Amino acid sequence: MAAVPALDTARVIQVPQPYLLFLGHAQETTFMKTALGLRDWAHNLCIGEYRCDSTKVSIGLPYLDPASAYRAGARSLVIGVASIGGAIDERWIDYLVRALEAGLDIVSGAHSRLSSSPILKNTADRLGRALIDIRVPPAGIPVATGRKRSGKRLLTVGTDCALGKKYTALSLQRQFQARGIDADFRATGQTGILISGAGIPIDAVVSDFVAGAAEMLSPDAAEDHWDVIEGQGSVFHPSYAGVSLGLLHGSQPDVIVLCHEAGRERIVGLESYRTPSLPEAIDLTERLARLTNPKVRCAGVSLNTSRLPEPEARQLLREVGVSLNLPVADPMRPGHELDRLVDACLA
Amino acid sequence: MAAVPALDTARVIQVPQPYLLFLGHAQETTFMKTALGLRDWAHNLCIGEYRCDSTKVSIGLPYLDPASAYRAGARSLVIGVASIGGAIDERWIDYLVRALEAGLDIVSGAHSRLSSSPILKNTADRLGRALIDIRVPPAGIPVATGRKRSGKRLLTVGTDCALGKKYTALSLQRQFQARGIDADFRATGQTGILISGAGIPIDAVVSDFVAGAAEMLSPDAAEDHWDVIEGQGSVFHPSYAGVSLGLLHGSQPDVIVLCHEAGRERIVGLESYRTPSLPEAIDLTERLARLTNPKVRCAGVSLNTSRLPEPEARQLLREVGVSLNLPVADPMRPGHELDRLVDACLA
Repeated sequence: MAAVPALDTARVIQVPQPYLLFLGHAQETTFMKTALGLRDWAHNLCIGEYRCDSTKVSIGLPYLDPASAYRAGARSLVIGVASIGGAIDERWIDYLVRALEAGLDIVSGAHSRLSSSPILKNTADRLGRALIDIRVPPAGIPVATGRKRSGKRLLTVGTDCALGKKYTALSLQRQFQARGIDADFRATGQTGILISGAGIPIDAVVSDFVAGAAEMLSPDAAEDHWDVIEGQGSVFHPSYAGVSLGLLHGSQPDVIVLCHEAGRERIVGLESYRTPSLPEAIDLTERLARLTNPKVRCAGVSLNTSRLPEPEARQLLREVGVSLNLPVADPMRPGHELDRLVDACLA
Repeated sequence: MAAVPALDTARVIQVPQPYLLFLGHAQETTFMKTALGLRDWAHNLCIGEYRCDSTKVSIGLPYLDPASAYRAGARSLVIGVASIGGAIDERWIDYLVRALEAGLDIVSGAHSRLSSSPILKNTADRLGRALIDIRVPPAGIPVATGRKRSGKRLLTVGTDCALGKKYTALSLQRQFQARGIDADFRATGQTGILISGAGIPIDAVVSDFVAGAAEMLSPDAAEDHWDVIEGQGSVFHPSYAGVSLGLLHGSQPDVIVLCHEAGRERIVGLESYRTPSLPEAIDLTERLARLTNPKVRCAGVSLNTSRLPEPEARQLLREVGVSLNLPVADPMRPGHELDRLVDACLA
């Protein structure tokens, strides 16, 4: 029996949980995608919200100052709002220093590094707190070796970006756990890292090391353990296919689940490019994946039907399932179809 | 008629030519791969060699001090030797300062940046010289758009790393020019950048931007102009396939030439992985390339026969050509086969 799977903590971003969500000085919630995502998808990780005194905006969590949040269990302050230009806004600094003094680490998905603020850097150094940039991959990621690892792996893949690969992986990991199966969610993007508390922002890794990063993210594990890995992009995306292929090869999935959004016929932002048909997407992804795992199989399709009313969505899931002769489910709609997809993943 | 193709000089590494090659203090030529490669493949760019006083090692070029080299036309000193650990050796600094003072820029392929030496940085700043790290991609590379560009493109692709993609591209570009065709070599690796004087080290680009870098590297051009693009890695390499796919998609090749080494059955360094068969390599690469250029075609195979004597090499080229029903040539062996391959590229 192999050891319990352990990530190399020096080479994977780690984020202490739970969180106090910082909303900045904005007067509206438009730029609070990170805060809203965490509130909706990881509600139990969100102890409260905090903001500059100049605003009264709220996302519906209890207001807590950093000291109260720390006493309530919070261990990180997550900057849940994007500034214009992607930097750390000068007006936030006093509030962030207060968080460090209260015992919280600070977590940012901004382009500029937290440590580029001398005040934050000096305060964190003095108090022994961490400034965690979840857009910045850890140093020392090796080139992939292609060595077969123990344990089982599932990777969500897609016909395009932004159509449900992260939530499909989260949902399947929870379904696996509900059946008593030891399963970890492995995060490859910022929101996934915040939800799971660890991971690597795979699209920010230098291209030579993408497959190596994927290998590190799902290390050797017990034979009955599942890593459920968050996919990125699509091998059919003219901008990002290389990222997706490196992740596919390094993940060595035993099972892939193809993610698609009902009705999406064009690559978002590149309207001259069509999304592939589902059979074509399955065929090419399996063919590419066989390089590092000849036994890979597509267990089914995760179809995002969020734009459809319930009866139409259920009917579409059935119809697509019949036409592909595969389980087709929307993880946001529990029921018979999802049970079948989980069965097929674990078969 | 489109404008003459112009690289965005702010976003592509530019290296002033010709060169003075610096050999450091080594007592033997083992670590002088860069210097030897330039001497052998870009002899006309190498004005002379220069070295620390403590050594007498030579690669057979005229010895020139920096001032003499500058007067003879040199515009850059290229560090042609690798140090242990990949940094700039302290013992080289005086010699490099002398080169800056003589009017030469300094070019390095080392891991550590030239500007991390305060003496070099201050001297270069004071004199207005450039410190050029050809391992470091330029800033501001955009995400690929997938937009079809004007002009014609050829990309060399491979069954593995290190088997002749760069020299095949260089050779084909020269063959094209010999036929009066306007053609540029587009470099994607360090040696290629030194040979051509410009390019992007594609494997050092953050993965999200690899296809975008490839788009920048072969901009819109006249319809009868050819960019001959240096391939990297292989879509069959478990460590680097993502790099190769991003380069393939961003390059939008009209023509691919598959590069292979005769007798190489295993991926170098990953002995459990087989190299693909040539038909499989052609089929998958064409399929992947069709995403951004539906008209892509494989014109033939560049077969590295350097380990075979001439008669056996010629026989193998004929046999493989018959079995694939495609032109198969070794660019290092001019003759009928190479002419056929060039014909097929331009057909």
